[in-house]
Amino acid sequence: MPLNEYATTLVVLDLVGIFVFAVTGALVAVRKTLDLFAALVLAVVTGLGGGFIRDVLIDATPPAALTDWRYLLVPVAAGLLTFAFHPTIGRLERVVTLFDAFGLAIFCVTGALKAVDYGLGPLPAALLGMVTGIGGGVLRDVLAGRVPVVFEGALYATPALAGAAVAVALDRTDLPLVVVAASGFSVCLGWRLLAAVRGWRAPMPKGPANV
Amino acid sequence: MPLNEYATTLVVLDLVGIFVFAVTGALVAVRKTLDLFAALVLAVVTGLGGGFIRDVLIDATPPAALTDWRYLLVPVAAGLLTFAFHPTIGRLERVVTLFDAFGLAIFCVTGALKAVDYGLGPLPAALLGMVTGIGGGVLRDVLAGRVPVVFEGALYATPALAGAAVAVALDRTDLPLVVVAASGFSVCLGWRLLAAVRGWRAPMPKGPANV
Amino acid sequence: MPLNEYATTLVVLDLVGIFVFAVTGALVAVRKTLDLFAALVLAVVTGLGGGFIRDVLIDATPPAALTDWRYLLVPVAAGLLTFAFHPTIGRLERVVTLFDAFGLAIFCVTGALKAVDYGLGPLPAALLGMVTGIGGGVLRDVLAGRVPVVFEGALYATPALAGAAVAVALDRTDLPLVVVAASGFSVCLGWRLLAAVRGWRAPMPKGPANV
Repeated sequence: MPLNEYATTLVVLDLVGIFVFAVTGALVAVRKTLDLFAALVLAVVTGLGGGFIRDVLIDATPPAALTDWRYLLVPVAAGLLTFAFHPTIGRLERVVTLFDAFGLAIFCVTGALKAVDYGLGPLPAALLGMVTGIGGGVLRDVLAGRVPVVFEGALYATPALAGAAVAVALDRTDLPLVVVAASGFSVCLGWRLLAAVRGWRAPMPKGPANV
Repeated sequence: MPLNEYATTLVVLDLVGIFVFAVTGALVAVRKTLDLFAALVLAVVTGLGGGFIRDVLIDATPPAALTDWRYLLVPVAAGLLTFAFHPTIGRLERVVTLFDAFGLAIFCVTGALKAVDYGLGPLPAALLGMVTGIGGGVLRDVLAGRVPVVFEGALYATPALAGAAVAVALDRTDLPLVVVAASGFSVCLGWRLLAAVRGWRAPMPKGPANV
Repeated sequence: MPLNEYATTLVVLDLVGIFVFAVTGALVAVRKTLDLFAALVLAVVTGLGGGFIRDVLIDATPPAALTDWRYLLVPVAAGLLTFAFHPTIGRLERVVTLFDAFGLAIFCVTGALKAVDYGLGPLPAALLGMVTGIGGGVLRDVLAGRVPVVFEGALYATPALAGAAVAVALDRTDLPLVVVAASGFSVCLGWRLLAAVRGWRAPMPKGPANV
């Protein structure tokens, strides 16, 4: 694939990821019967929050989303559409889960590679890739007043960390960037979808909880 | 108005805004029967939090509030006064709402113009103006363990966004800065007070919420 | 003490502080019957969160913890150990309180002196020292969906502020750094342990709370 097409593909994928994450944010607002404004704020925070946390930590400020209007337009549009058509979108829960996994797989890879670009070592870069993937959802849940779902047993962060780690590891080889990104993306997406379909859970603590 | 008086006026207005926001933060602590320290922390976070979020995102760190002791003294004083005299201040709820609207109108304008100064485009700058206005209250509510009131149907963020947008738009004309700031300020303040007096609400989602 | 030994001692103390803070984070996850991943995230956030907030505010990004792998390894190990052996650790509550006070005393001093190094004035530097000490615990409690315990009457932040203020004040004299650090450390540790042993509480608001 020529470089231009490759860059365009990445931006398109990024915007798709932001869109589906923003839909999940607006759905939380609707289900808590919050108002239109809450839906838009939660859409923007969920879509862009993970990238914001990463950019602030690696000193890549102002974040890309504040210098390119498309990155703001997409989550706002997602919020408006969700607010208007939420019963239909709610019925498409499986589609949302699929697209959400897609967004997670994109963000963990692009987040990790951006951290590498800014000079971070492999371990922190993989961690920041995971943070980019899960950060928006964590902010969404904290603002909506509930314990982040990523903490409650569903396998979500582990695939993101795995995908980010694969991308960081392959990035140190001579493989072309597109192979590096596609490998990390596939590991995260495959693991996350298998976990969702088969109901895999992370290990829970053993023994009495109230010690 | 000569430039010096103008700058002094802006700083005084800024400190007034921080003071009244800090009062609302300390009142939340008192009403949850938290202790003196919680009242001071919530006062400082509510008064300065919105500006901190903006400064971190546009890379204007360390924030002004950390290099000018007056910006720390004012919210601490507001917290102490509120803790000591909270029944009286609680009775002045209407005065608090008025001053709070005043602070919101100042912060959305100064926040947006600062973002423009740091090279951001019109849309992100307006958004950051809104964030400066509402950010402190959102942090206050998250720390106090409740869903941010700005999400619960009262018209609050929309006036802030409108005021910020007006300031950003007029700033691109040849109008003097004082007119730019006063216009954004008036739009936000007028809208917010009308919404408070008439009980205007943002649109709520239609149809069944639990889809 | 020669300079090399002194620097090594500081790093060791820092890692001890991160370790014990991370244990408290993982214990919160276990007690809420969250999963292994939640325990690890809360361990990392509690151990490193206060330093992250400080570094972002003073523009010392990327934070040290993202450029030195030991700072990531320690809280992850603490989280794994806590998850595996939580009944035993839970029984050692007094040891945890002791080590937690130890970590608080280290972080308030190192946080304040780092802020001074980055050019901040005495008042903001002392405040950032306190933020470094209490920030991780506040993030832990917000993510776990409870009001930060530091707000609920236990004397915790005041000793941290006192220790940070002592360190900042003595740092302006000719005293050697080791005396400066040890003095702030002792003030914070002594005050915190006395408060814990004697059950000292911060002042609560007087009069009716629901005004």
